[in-house]
Amino acid sequence: MRTGMWLAGARGSVAVTSLVGALAVRACLAEPVGCVTELAPLRSPALPNLADLVFGGHDISELCLVKKAQSLVAAGVLPASIVDAVGDELSAVEAELRTPSRGHSQEETARQLIADLVSFRERHELDQVVVVNVTSTEPMPAAHPAHQDLGLLTEALKSEDVLPPSALYAYAAFSAGCSYVDFTPSVGARLPALDQLALAAGVPYAGHDGKTGETLLKSVLAPMFAMRNLHVRSWSGTNLLGGGDGANLAQPEANAAKVASKQRVLRETLGYEPEGHTRIDYVPDIGDLKTAWDLITFSGFLGSRMRMEFTWHGCDSALAAPLVLDLVRLTAAAHSRGLSGRLPQLAFFFKDPIGEVSHSLADQWRVLCEWVGGWNDTE
Amino acid sequence: MRTGMWLAGARGSVAVTSLVGALAVRACLAEPVGCVTELAPLRSPALPNLADLVFGGHDISELCLVKKAQSLVAAGVLPASIVDAVGDELSAVEAELRTPSRGHSQEETARQLIADLVSFRERHELDQVVVVNVTSTEPMPAAHPAHQDLGLLTEALKSEDVLPPSALYAYAAFSAGCSYVDFTPSVGARLPALDQLALAAGVPYAGHDGKTGETLLKSVLAPMFAMRNLHVRSWSGTNLLGGGDGANLAQPEANAAKVASKQRVLRETLGYEPEGHTRIDYVPDIGDLKTAWDLITFSGFLGSRMRMEFTWHGCDSALAAPLVLDLVRLTAAAHSRGLSGRLPQLAFFFKDPIGEVSHSLADQWRVLCEWVGGWNDTE
Amino acid sequence: MRTGMWLAGARGSVAVTSLVGALAVRACLAEPVGCVTELAPLRSPALPNLADLVFGGHDISELCLVKKAQSLVAAGVLPASIVDAVGDELSAVEAELRTPSRGHSQEETARQLIADLVSFRERHELDQVVVVNVTSTEPMPAAHPAHQDLGLLTEALKSEDVLPPSALYAYAAFSAGCSYVDFTPSVGARLPALDQLALAAGVPYAGHDGKTGETLLKSVLAPMFAMRNLHVRSWSGTNLLGGGDGANLAQPEANAAKVASKQRVLRETLGYEPEGHTRIDYVPDIGDLKTAWDLITFSGFLGSRMRMEFTWHGCDSALAAPLVLDLVRLTAAAHSRGLSGRLPQLAFFFKDPIGEVSHSLADQWRVLCEWVGGWNDTE
Amino acid sequence: MRTGMWLAGARGSVAVTSLVGALAVRACLAEPVGCVTELAPLRSPALPNLADLVFGGHDISELCLVKKAQSLVAAGVLPASIVDAVGDELSAVEAELRTPSRGHSQEETARQLIADLVSFRERHELDQVVVVNVTSTEPMPAAHPAHQDLGLLTEALKSEDVLPPSALYAYAAFSAGCSYVDFTPSVGARLPALDQLALAAGVPYAGHDGKTGETLLKSVLAPMFAMRNLHVRSWSGTNLLGGGDGANLAQPEANAAKVASKQRVLRETLGYEPEGHTRIDYVPDIGDLKTAWDLITFSGFLGSRMRMEFTWHGCDSALAAPLVLDLVRLTAAAHSRGLSGRLPQLAFFFKDPIGEVSHSLADQWRVLCEWVGGWNDTE
Repeated sequence: MRTGMWLAGARGSVAVTSLVGALAVRACLAEPVGCVTELAPLRSPALPNLADLVFGGHDISELCLVKKAQSLVAAGVLPASIVDAVGDELSAVEAELRTPSRGHSQEETARQLIADLVSFRERHELDQVVVVNVTSTEPMPAAHPAHQDLGLLTEALKSEDVLPPSALYAYAAFSAGCSYVDFTPSVGARLPALDQLALAAGVPYAGHDGKTGETLLKSVLAPMFAMRNLHVRSWSGTNLLGGGDGANLAQPEANAAKVASKQRVLRETLGYEPEGHTRIDYVPDIGDLKTAWDLITFSGFLGSRMRMEFTWHGCDSALAAPLVLDLVRLTAAAHSRGLSGRLPQLAFFFKDPIGEVSHSLADQWRVLCEWVGGWNDTE
Repeated sequence: MRTGMWLAGARGSVAVTSLVGALAVRACLAEPVGCVTELAPLRSPALPNLADLVFGGHDISELCLVKKAQSLVAAGVLPASIVDAVGDELSAVEAELRTPSRGHSQEETARQLIADLVSFRERHELDQVVVVNVTSTEPMPAAHPAHQDLGLLTEALKSEDVLPPSALYAYAAFSAGCSYVDFTPSVGARLPALDQLALAAGVPYAGHDGKTGETLLKSVLAPMFAMRNLHVRSWSGTNLLGGGDGANLAQPEANAAKVASKQRVLRETLGYEPEGHTRIDYVPDIGDLKTAWDLITFSGFLGSRMRMEFTWHGCDSALAAPLVLDLVRLTAAAHSRGLSGRLPQLAFFFKDPIGEVSHSLADQWRVLCEWVGGWNDTE
Repeated sequence: MRTGMWLAGARGSVAVTSLVGALAVRACLAEPVGCVTELAPLRSPALPNLADLVFGGHDISELCLVKKAQSLVAAGVLPASIVDAVGDELSAVEAELRTPSRGHSQEETARQLIADLVSFRERHELDQVVVVNVTSTEPMPAAHPAHQDLGLLTEALKSEDVLPPSALYAYAAFSAGCSYVDFTPSVGARLPALDQLALAAGVPYAGHDGKTGETLLKSVLAPMFAMRNLHVRSWSGTNLLGGGDGANLAQPEANAAKVASKQRVLRETLGYEPEGHTRIDYVPDIGDLKTAWDLITFSGFLGSRMRMEFTWHGCDSALAAPLVLDLVRLTAAAHSRGLSGRLPQLAFFFKDPIGEVSHSLADQWRVLCEWVGGWNDTE
Repeated sequence: MRTGMWLAGARGSVAVTSLVGALAVRACLAEPVGCVTELAPLRSPALPNLADLVFGGHDISELCLVKKAQSLVAAGVLPASIVDAVGDELSAVEAELRTPSRGHSQEETARQLIADLVSFRERHELDQVVVVNVTSTEPMPAAHPAHQDLGLLTEALKSEDVLPPSALYAYAAFSAGCSYVDFTPSVGARLPALDQLALAAGVPYAGHDGKTGETLLKSVLAPMFAMRNLHVRSWSGTNLLGGGDGANLAQPEANAAKVASKQRVLRETLGYEPEGHTRIDYVPDIGDLKTAWDLITFSGFLGSRMRMEFTWHGCDSALAAPLVLDLVRLTAAAHSRGLSGRLPQLAFFFKDPIGEVSHSLADQWRVLCEWVGGWNDTE
């Protein structure tokens, strides 16, 4: 099953780490640590192999992939020996990257994106293409009637800038018959008009916002408090990060979108919203090795007051990249099995999952295992 | 269903917090925060109500319950208003406490324990009695052939000190037709001879070692690393605590038993044993408000190295006491439904659960919910 | 030396903790823990004794002192037994508290404040009165020409609201011949016109912003990095607090004033400003037991990168209150020895000290000890 | 002033980091970050320049210096570019390293050490040689009468193994007219007989145990609590480290020596000993990037209970190496100015300083600055 992995934001840290890692793992230069589809309960003949993936993508930056990879070596994200070893193959991927061109209307811009996707699929005789959004977090867009209806949207695109870039990308992907994964908190495919389009086109989509650090911890700790009937009084979090992601999230609008995405797990898991805030601060020196600190105050039997703190020092790109590969493999398999529309079964991967799903990591894991296990039973 | 709750170690911090809490909750003076049998998925007509519990117990100390409760107020564990409000009822429990007498042989000591249990059951016309061990942690006993066989044990008790106190207690409980819960890491009922006795007597038992702090966190964090295919390189823990429990655990032998109990979850959940140690240090000033600090180093995609730390400031007695009440209710229900021998379904509550069970808290929770849910279906 | 301690904000947490503590210590009900003037190098016959202090003050609130003290018992700041023991004396202080009245002009308001201060001094035949500002943090005021010149100020007060409350208070104190201590980050006496007034009136003043937690730590840790020639790359801080102080600091303007006060120590001690921010978040549940978390990244020999974190769980009122008593004793002594204008020798107590002084706690301590020691030599 | 720096343990991590760093800084490849003698108050013409240092040493290992440096690159301690750049010079140092030979008696072993030192001095026409002990921590030796008296010692060395290696080294250094710095907690020169020898030989010595992490923090935090009259109730510390130092300190005897060295600062600074222990645990995965976690509980005004925690992630070799260079420069200067015996003025550098000195870092800094400043005045 030849599968295209098309990255929107292909020259960013997460994308390049994914590419280097995929090339390294399939050359047996590294173990697939961090790839969950390599764990026993998720191994399946229904998934394309890493070796079956063909890479392409868009980016507005023109920084070459090898240069970007070397900057990730300097930042301590990638090992020099791996980047050296896969350098030639990485350069070969350059030929598959495109600079998106901006048309006179959003319709025209979309048409160009679609052409790039179709051309990629045909050039490589791919069975399917998964588009993954790993661009920077956008501000929340203003509401617009065209977001609610595919007919209105099609019309509006001709004359108005009605979609934020992530959503225009989803529009193009679905129109081209590609599935779509949103790894960011941007709006992406989360508009009724786009859901209609995905269903009409018979393609599935997944999102939102890869769960890699503080929220991952929340998704196991909040259920722990709930299962033990302990009352969480406050949960406050501080995230310090540098890098391009940090610079972008220092913008108030992007910050608001991200913070909303991060808080949802508490409300959904506990059934109430504890006091406290989640902050994101840009500290360039910290680079990609993000530090999150959370303080949780809670009360137990007879009102006894207790607290816990944690500090998480995680390399965001290294945590995200293997999940991108997992999502491509899983979404491709879903697509090839005829699923279309939302994939709530992939909630395990996301801070702000689509659909009415459990926010407990363990529940999400079980759902995922059963879903993939079901494919094996029917092969 | 009138149920006796017989506490071995009835004047200790956990026991007295349980008693005060049970009296307060059934008088509607406090919410049952921390009691998991009050959560929707575990509510069941099969469980005795708190109001149906009758309290009794043994202790070698003679400190009166109200005095002990007042010392727990001073230590910040119990609120003064609650202790004042239940003082009279707490004093009434005094009448049901016994000082265990030591016979010429362990057989004779056991006979006296049995007599106390039977008398308690008959005096209060109880349907059943659950014996809960909340005494101090014992050293691991030396192996002895009589531990393997009930016949040999019965013989040996006449002439040798062959059982540590916690096991002699289990022997007495089973002989009296009572179920038994071991809330400590002591050997308790974990001897083949005692398992034979429980089965013969038709009584169930559960254990070992209530999971209230650091290990509770391990039971959600270790599965998180496993589910994400992240490699845990080291996991080091330090536990600082005062109080009687701290003083006892400062003894090397008790410390060893406890530490072994605390480490098992990592090996079982991760499938390998990371580097690092768990330490317990006695710091009297810290009292019952235990502090645990853990450092976890792990590696992800392409060898990236990351770490997390947590600090847990938890009041051990307040965390343990509601679980004692839960265990009594659940064990009583199991007994009344005819179950005997090990209750691996109660793994959720224990650091070192009996049987071949998952050590993931989420898995244990599901098992528990399905078990109790099954009773409701058949009522 | 009979000394008046007049509290602006007399019904707030810091003020009431100071009052309860002063009453308790002089009744030998508590040790003067936290009072630095009780340490050997600062003991001096030049200082008024606690027993010589007479208490009074202003507050816009009318909550009675005993009620406020009881709320501090509930919050875990004050012990019930102490509050009970000093209840009568605390009630007696009520008679010395006044509600400030607001005149038609700031001149008229000041006149009333002056009258209250003079009446207090005469009524109790005090040798001197120290006014301490422990009101809530104000926003930074807009600049005004009258701030620069006492003549202009005197004129402006007749017709304009030219001074923020803390500065009007300093104006009144100096006009009444009282010394003034600003324990908050508000502007207080920090205006050239007020400095002119203090010098003209022959009274000393001290400030700003009592150093009780995070900044106290910075004032020993930043010098440590400097003395070891380690390069601090970033210093990020998060402060979580509830209580009235937290609610006020959640206001953006007050927050800005506070944060500016907290950051100065780094720039002054290191000689450069590291990356990173200091945040203050309001979390009502945390109450007065503030939690601060700081992350410091630094580099050493040959560029090696290292980090440290600290968490501080400190009770702000309990940390501040003894320093208020110290400042009153020291300022009174300075006044009685004829000093007037700024007291940079008291930098030890403040986040944002007046004058060109060292921001290293150890240097500040030495300056303080030498200053007080000098008095002893000349007695 | 040509100065020899002779390293006992020349192939260990600290030694090799010192060598690489000295070579890099004098070639202007790196800034002297971490070298305190480069700070304004300690710059002095009395100190030998880094360019004047000549390197030699002993080690029982035969691992070549470049190999060791490369392993420190792999461990993240040294940057590859620096090690590459100084590789040739580092190889040149190889020629000055000797394997110590073990004689039939300690007297004979010492004679050989002396011959190596004298030969080094003469071969390079050095004005003086400073011997620095950076070998592994030894267990505390048993007491022996010969430790008390130089005459007895001289006699005993002929027939008994009366000195541990670090002390035999000090004996040889003094006998050869070299000064001696003990950077470890071993006994070193801390025996009356050796003090007599140093005075007789007219050479100075300094020690013990470089202060690089947890104890450095204690030496600023403990004075902070003392200056604020806050009562430290408990101070518990956990040190997790790998590397050769960690493996050695996991031995109970070495551990005991180290821990004793680490605790002294609290007793000396606070005037009493708080509860709590300092632990050292060997976690190979953590390598040279040591993690220390400390919990401090303290009480303030009216008994309010508070706590602070810190975590220190420091690279021990990188923190120690520049101090080794500082100590060599300062000890050489002291020697050349005619000082002999103990150098308590160097307490700033040590966990367990020689002599009756302050354990506050700020006090130690002032003493050091005044000492070096005094040399400048008299030049």
